[in-house]
Amino acid sequence: MDPDTLSKAFVEHYYSTFDTNRAGLANLYQESSMLTFEGQKIQGSQNIVNKLTSLPFQQCKHTITTVDCQPSGPAGGMLVFVSGNLQLAGEQHALKFSQMFHLMPTPQGSFYVYNDIFRLNYA
Amino acid sequence: MDPDTLSKAFVEHYYSTFDTNRAGLANLYQESSMLTFEGQKIQGSQNIVNKLTSLPFQQCKHTITTVDCQPSGPAGGMLVFVSGNLQLAGEQHALKFSQMFHLMPTPQGSFYVYNDIFRLNYA
Repeated sequence: MDPDTLSKAFVEHYYSTFDTNRAGLANLYQESSMLTFEGQKIQGSQNIVNKLTSLPFQQCKHTITTVDCQPSGPAGGMLVFVSGNLQLAGEQHALKFSQMFHLMPTPQGSFYVYNDIFRLNYA
Repeated sequence: MDPDTLSKAFVEHYYSTFDTNRAGLANLYQESSMLTFEGQKIQGSQNIVNKLTSLPFQQCKHTITTVDCQPSGPAGGMLVFVSGNLQLAGEQHALKFSQMFHLMPTPQGSFYVYNDIFRLNYA
């Protein structure tokens, strides 16, 4: 699978899981994984999912605007850069966000999220 | 220098160079460097600087809103994620942007930009 197709497939999987079964995101992270969420640094799969599942909204819907990807070096990683909108249930206006993922290969031929940085883009 | 201090120093250097001497950015890239600018993929220091110096505006001013950083793995790289505003000369409204850099260490103890992805955040 070429990198553009792979990154788009990852992005679709990530946000559809976020929107329907947030706890299921645990499978995408490992103990070494890092999330920086609005400036807060969190490490490890369980801590990351605890953060994401405790965000102060229940229902949300991500809509993706752009996906860019680049190989991150000889270790076989891939950088994925996303912009989009986040609609929270009961809110009139969607929030714009940007997020980057550094995906690293697993011995099983899949990928996990090693780095994850999320920011809302306030108007 | 700790990663947060280093990434903020890099970001200040990068955008002040962009705003005052765009051609001087060539020193920050190498032949293996990649830029994805609004979806267009460009590789190599000279090609990247040719792109940046041929953008359809002469004067601009970047203002940084947020800088986040994370180590990118055992190779000693660093991911830097930036959001901010870009004011073009003669334009009434600033443009919002997000940009990520993957910095890799050089043998001389400095860093160069291996990955660079830039996107305007349209309203």
